[in-house]
Amino acid sequence: MIRVSIVGASGYTAAELFRILSVHGEVELAGAYALRNAGRRVSEVHPNLKGIVDMVIEAADYDRIAGSSDVVFAAVPHKVPMTFVPRLLNSGVRVVDLSADYRFDDVSVYERYYTKHESPEVRGVYGLPEIYREKIRRANLVANPGCFPTAAVLSLAPLVKERLIDLDHIVVDAKTGTSGAGATPTEATHHPTIGASVRPYSVLSHRHAPEMDQELSKLAGRAVRVSFTPHLIPIVRGILSTAHVFLNRNLGREDLLEIYRKFYAGEPFVRILDVLPEVNFVLGSNYCDIGLAVDGEGRAAVIAAIDNLMKGASGQAVQNMNIMFGLDESEGLRGAPMRP
Amino acid sequence: MIRVSIVGASGYTAAELFRILSVHGEVELAGAYALRNAGRRVSEVHPNLKGIVDMVIEAADYDRIAGSSDVVFAAVPHKVPMTFVPRLLNSGVRVVDLSADYRFDDVSVYERYYTKHESPEVRGVYGLPEIYREKIRRANLVANPGCFPTAAVLSLAPLVKERLIDLDHIVVDAKTGTSGAGATPTEATHHPTIGASVRPYSVLSHRHAPEMDQELSKLAGRAVRVSFTPHLIPIVRGILSTAHVFLNRNLGREDLLEIYRKFYAGEPFVRILDVLPEVNFVLGSNYCDIGLAVDGEGRAAVIAAIDNLMKGASGQAVQNMNIMFGLDESEGLRGAPMRP
Amino acid sequence: MIRVSIVGASGYTAAELFRILSVHGEVELAGAYALRNAGRRVSEVHPNLKGIVDMVIEAADYDRIAGSSDVVFAAVPHKVPMTFVPRLLNSGVRVVDLSADYRFDDVSVYERYYTKHESPEVRGVYGLPEIYREKIRRANLVANPGCFPTAAVLSLAPLVKERLIDLDHIVVDAKTGTSGAGATPTEATHHPTIGASVRPYSVLSHRHAPEMDQELSKLAGRAVRVSFTPHLIPIVRGILSTAHVFLNRNLGREDLLEIYRKFYAGEPFVRILDVLPEVNFVLGSNYCDIGLAVDGEGRAAVIAAIDNLMKGASGQAVQNMNIMFGLDESEGLRGAPMRP
Amino acid sequence: MIRVSIVGASGYTAAELFRILSVHGEVELAGAYALRNAGRRVSEVHPNLKGIVDMVIEAADYDRIAGSSDVVFAAVPHKVPMTFVPRLLNSGVRVVDLSADYRFDDVSVYERYYTKHESPEVRGVYGLPEIYREKIRRANLVANPGCFPTAAVLSLAPLVKERLIDLDHIVVDAKTGTSGAGATPTEATHHPTIGASVRPYSVLSHRHAPEMDQELSKLAGRAVRVSFTPHLIPIVRGILSTAHVFLNRNLGREDLLEIYRKFYAGEPFVRILDVLPEVNFVLGSNYCDIGLAVDGEGRAAVIAAIDNLMKGASGQAVQNMNIMFGLDESEGLRGAPMRP
Repeated sequence: MIRVSIVGASGYTAAELFRILSVHGEVELAGAYALRNAGRRVSEVHPNLKGIVDMVIEAADYDRIAGSSDVVFAAVPHKVPMTFVPRLLNSGVRVVDLSADYRFDDVSVYERYYTKHESPEVRGVYGLPEIYREKIRRANLVANPGCFPTAAVLSLAPLVKERLIDLDHIVVDAKTGTSGAGATPTEATHHPTIGASVRPYSVLSHRHAPEMDQELSKLAGRAVRVSFTPHLIPIVRGILSTAHVFLNRNLGREDLLEIYRKFYAGEPFVRILDVLPEVNFVLGSNYCDIGLAVDGEGRAAVIAAIDNLMKGASGQAVQNMNIMFGLDESEGLRGAPMRP
Repeated sequence: MIRVSIVGASGYTAAELFRILSVHGEVELAGAYALRNAGRRVSEVHPNLKGIVDMVIEAADYDRIAGSSDVVFAAVPHKVPMTFVPRLLNSGVRVVDLSADYRFDDVSVYERYYTKHESPEVRGVYGLPEIYREKIRRANLVANPGCFPTAAVLSLAPLVKERLIDLDHIVVDAKTGTSGAGATPTEATHHPTIGASVRPYSVLSHRHAPEMDQELSKLAGRAVRVSFTPHLIPIVRGILSTAHVFLNRNLGREDLLEIYRKFYAGEPFVRILDVLPEVNFVLGSNYCDIGLAVDGEGRAAVIAAIDNLMKGASGQAVQNMNIMFGLDESEGLRGAPMRP
Repeated sequence: MIRVSIVGASGYTAAELFRILSVHGEVELAGAYALRNAGRRVSEVHPNLKGIVDMVIEAADYDRIAGSSDVVFAAVPHKVPMTFVPRLLNSGVRVVDLSADYRFDDVSVYERYYTKHESPEVRGVYGLPEIYREKIRRANLVANPGCFPTAAVLSLAPLVKERLIDLDHIVVDAKTGTSGAGATPTEATHHPTIGASVRPYSVLSHRHAPEMDQELSKLAGRAVRVSFTPHLIPIVRGILSTAHVFLNRNLGREDLLEIYRKFYAGEPFVRILDVLPEVNFVLGSNYCDIGLAVDGEGRAAVIAAIDNLMKGASGQAVQNMNIMFGLDESEGLRGAPMRP
Repeated sequence: MIRVSIVGASGYTAAELFRILSVHGEVELAGAYALRNAGRRVSEVHPNLKGIVDMVIEAADYDRIAGSSDVVFAAVPHKVPMTFVPRLLNSGVRVVDLSADYRFDDVSVYERYYTKHESPEVRGVYGLPEIYREKIRRANLVANPGCFPTAAVLSLAPLVKERLIDLDHIVVDAKTGTSGAGATPTEATHHPTIGASVRPYSVLSHRHAPEMDQELSKLAGRAVRVSFTPHLIPIVRGILSTAHVFLNRNLGREDLLEIYRKFYAGEPFVRILDVLPEVNFVLGSNYCDIGLAVDGEGRAAVIAAIDNLMKGASGQAVQNMNIMFGLDESEGLRGAPMRP
C-alpha cells in the first residue's frame, strides 16, 4: 500500500482527495495536516466523511510526514508549497502539488502573476497526463494544472498542435461553479450575492491565462496568447469552458471530431461527444467531455466540461499519483458521473 | 415631503429601503449612515442603485440626524438601536426600528434571548399593521417585526384568536432564503455550502420563537408556545412558512378560507389564495400570501409566503411609516411581485 | 456474477442504478428495457454514462428477461410493475420493485391512494433493511420504500417503537429536490417556476403518508397517523425531512442520541450525528444522516437527510439486492458523499 | 389614458408587461388575449398578479381589439404576429411586436432563420431606442429587439461605429437565465437537468446572431458577422453578455469608458459602470449595465447585463411605447433593480 499524506486538510480539494482515496484500493491514508482545524477530525471539518475518514488533523511536521509517507498531496494555496516541497523531495517523498508553485517553466512568469519564488531551482512536471504522461511517470514532483487550464488546454490542444486555427484570435470564455473559490467565505461567493446572478471576474487578467499560454505555446511551437475570461455562476461544482476559434482551413464538424477522437484515442478520462457537453455530464467524475460546433464560415466553438474539483484538481492529482506509482490510472476514479 | 434617514446603510434591509423609497412620492432621503462604508456612495455599496441613490454614506451623528429627519429607519443589528433610539425620540424624531430591540413587551424575554437592554423604559409598538394599525398610527417608535414572526403570526392569527386549533400543538416549519442572514459572508451562506443543500438551524431555539409566542399568546388570551424550526434553502429571497395545526372542530377548507378572508378583509397586503402559496408569488412585493389545506381528520396546514426583505423587513417598515404619517399605506409599495 | 436487468431504463432511478452497478463487483448488466427510448443506447439517454453503459435499450420482452436475469429492478411508475412482476417471480427471477405496487400490507390502502391492484395476492417484503433485513434476505420480491417514508420512518422509528412521543401529534415536514419528480418536464419542475421559489404540494394528501402510517403503526403496535407535507425546493437531489414531535417524558438531547445510536448500532447506512444533518452531507451516497434537537419543554425535532435517488430509491434498491443475494451489503455503495 | 391590449397573455413577457403596466400612470389595460387560458383570469395564470390584474383572458378577436385599443403588444411567438399585425395597423392601431417577425430589413434573412413571411411588405422600426429613438417616435409598428441582440448591440455599438475593433473577430458569449425559454416546460429547462448545470445551445447557429449582424453592420457601414454562442445557466432571470474583441489601436480602459459614456450620454436606461456588471445589478429593471476590461495588448472584453424580461423584452417594449406616444420614456419603468 502506498502511504499518502495530505497537507491542507481543511480545504475543498483535500475533502475531494479524501473522498477519492476512500475507495482507492492501493493506498493508505498516512496523515492529514492543516494549521486551521488541527486537533479536529477530518469528518468534523468535512461532515460528509463521517465514518469514512475520522482521522485527526494535525499541524504539519515535515520530518514526520517525510518518514511516514510515500507521496504527499500539497492542497494548500500557492506560496505555501514552496516552503516545504523541496524538503520532502530531498527526503525521497514524491509530491503532487495542487497549487501553482511549480507549474511554470519560466519562474519569472510565476513571479509576475503570483509572488517571489523561494525555490526556483526545483522543477515539477506539468501534470496533464494526456500530454505529459511519460514525464509524469518518472516525476518526483508533479505540478497539478489549474482547473481552467485543464479544460482550455484539453479543448484546444488538437487544433493548436496541428495549427488548424488562427493562433492570434483564440478566446476562452469559462463558467465556473463556486467551489473553485475555496472553503473560505467571501463576498463573491456569498449566496445572496451570487445565488441568482453571474459575476465576471479577473477579466483578461486571470492567473490561469499564462498557464494556458505556456502549454498552448509549447503545443504550437510558437507563442500563443489566449483571451481568457472566467465567470462565476450559481452552481457549486463544474466548469464549462467555451473556446471560440477561427479555422484556418475548411473543416467540417465531423472532420474536427475525427481529429479529436484520434488525438485522445485511448485516453481514459477524455470523452469526445457527438453532442455538446453540459456540466452535469461529468459531475463527481474525472472526465473531461469535449464537443464542438462549426458554422461553415470558419468559426468554431470547442466546449469542454469538467468537474473543477475532480479533473480540475483532486481527481487529476490522483490520476497523476496513479501514473507516478505505476498503478492503473483509473484506480479510485471509476465512479460514474452523477446526473441528475 | 417627509425627511427620512437610514442608519445602517450597508445592509440588505437598507438596500431594500433605498429601493422602495426611490419610488415613494412623499419622502425625501435626508441621509444615509453607516460606520463601515462611510465615505462611499450608497450606489458603490449597492451597485443596483447606481444613478438612483448616489448619496454619500456618513458616519452617524445623531444630533445632525435629529435635526434633518422626520423619521429614521434603524436598519442595524439588535443591541445597536437601543444606544441611539431614545435620543432620537427625545428630539422628536420618529423611529422605525427593524431590529428586535423594542419588540418585546417583557424586557426579560428580550434579555433572555438577546442581550442586556439599555433602555428598557422605552416602549415601541409592535409593527404588524394587520393587528396594531391604530397603535402604529400614533406611535413614535415602531418595532418592526421579525421576518419569521410576520409570516407565522399572520398565518395563525385567525385560528388562534378564535381558538379553533389545539393551542398546545402548533408547529411552524419555515424555509428561508439566504438574504435573511445579512450581507456579511459566513460559512452558512457560503455558496458551495448551501447552493445545493438545505440547512436546518436554531432548531427549537430561534430567537424569533418568543416573538411569535408573545403575539399569539395575546391573540389567544392565554400562553401559547409554538414549536418553531427554520431551514436555510438555496434561494436568495423569500420565506415559506408552514404552520401545522390540529383543528378543534370539524372545519373544511372552505370554512377556513372564509374565516381568513373575513379576518383580513380590506388588508392591502394580505392575499388569501384559493391555491397554495409559493415564494415567487410575492417576490419583490409587500404581500403576504396565505393558503391552506385540511385532511378531513382534524389536521390542517396553513402556508404563508412573504419576501423576507419586504413584508419581512423593509416593506413592512415603510408600510408602518406610511401609517405613522397618515399617508396612503401602499405608497412606495405598489410594485407587483416579480414572477418568474 | 449476478445477472441484473433494469426495466424502465429511461428514468432517473434507472440512471442511478446504472451508476451504482457500474462499480458493483458482483453483478453483470444483462439488459436495459424501456418503451420510450428503445433502440437508443443508455448513454444517449443518460449522457453521463457515455463509455460506461453503452448497452442498447430494448422494449421489454419478459420471457427473455426471465431467461437472462437473476434479478430485475422495476424502475417504472406504479401500476406498471404489477403487470409483469408476477410473471417474473413465477419464472424464478427475484425482483426489487421501486414503485408503490407492493408496499402495502393492506391492498385497499393501495387502491385508495393509487389504483386498482391487479395482483393483490402477490406479497412483497417492505425493503427497509434497518427494520426488515431478515425478511429481505429470504424475499423474492422486495418493495423498495418511497423516498419520503424512508427518511421519515428512519427518523421516527426509535421514538415510535419505544413510544417516547405523543403518537397523535407527529408532524413530518419534508423538503425535496426536483429529481424526485422524475425525468418528464412539468410545470412544477420548470426551472423558471421553481428555480427561485418553494412549492408546497400534496399538502396533507401525499401518497407517501399512508406508507409512513403503515410502518410507524407496526412499530408502535397501534394506529399512528402522521401529518405529512412535502415542499419542492430548488435543489436537484436530496431530501431533508424534519419530524416535529412532542416527548412523553423528560429526555434530553444526549438521551435521545443514545437511543438512536443503540437502535441503529451496526447499520452501515445510518449515521447518527452530533450536529444537525444537511442535505450535502449525504449527496451521491446511500447514507441516511439523523440528528436532533430538543427544547427542554417536551418538544423535539428529528431531522433526517438522504439522497432521494440513493437511500430514497436506487441505492436502497441495490442494498436490498445485496441482502437478497447474500453479498456484502455495501457492495457498489461505498462511494463517499460528495461535498461541496 | 392610452388603451393597451396584450395578445399572448399566457407567456412570461405578457406577465412582465402586466407587471410593468400596473404601475404605469398613463395607460389603461383594455384587454388580455390568448388561446390557451381563454376564460381564466390573468391572475390565475400568473398568480403573482392576484388582486392586481384579475381581468379575464379572452380569445383574440382582432376587430374588437382594434376598436378598443390604441396600442397592442404582440407577445406571441414569431410567425403568429404576421397573421394579425397588418390588420391592426390598417385599423390605425399601433403595435409593439415582441417577436422576430418584423426585425429584419431583408426578409430573406428572416425566412432563412425563421419561416416564410406572410406580410413582407409591412415594415417595422427596430426598437432599440438608443439607436433609433427618432424613428420609433413616428413608428406605427415597432419590432422589439431580441434579448441577446439588445445586450450585444448595446455593448458593441460604440466600438463598432467608430471602428475601433477588428470587425472580423468579434466573439459574443452569452449566459442566460431560463425564463428566456418561455413558460412551456421542456427538457432543457427541466430543473433536474439545468439546476446544477450549464448548457450551451444553438452554438454558432442561434437566430439572434443575424439580428446582431444586421444592426452591427449598419453601425459599421460594412458587413459584420459575430461569432455568437449562448449558454443556459441556472438562474431564472438575466443575461450576461460578454463581447470579446481585439482593439485596432492603443486604447486604455479609461479611454474606452469615456467613449461609452459619451455615446450613451443622457440615455435613461444605459449605465456605464466603473466596475464589471453582474446580473443582479439590473434584475427587475430596464437597465443595461455595461463595463469593460482591456489587457494592454489589444484585447478587450465588454460586458453587458440586462434583465431578459425587461430591457430584453417587455421593459424595452414599454420604453418603445412611451416613445411612440410622447410619454416620459421612464414611465412605468422607474422601479430600482432588486438586489440581493
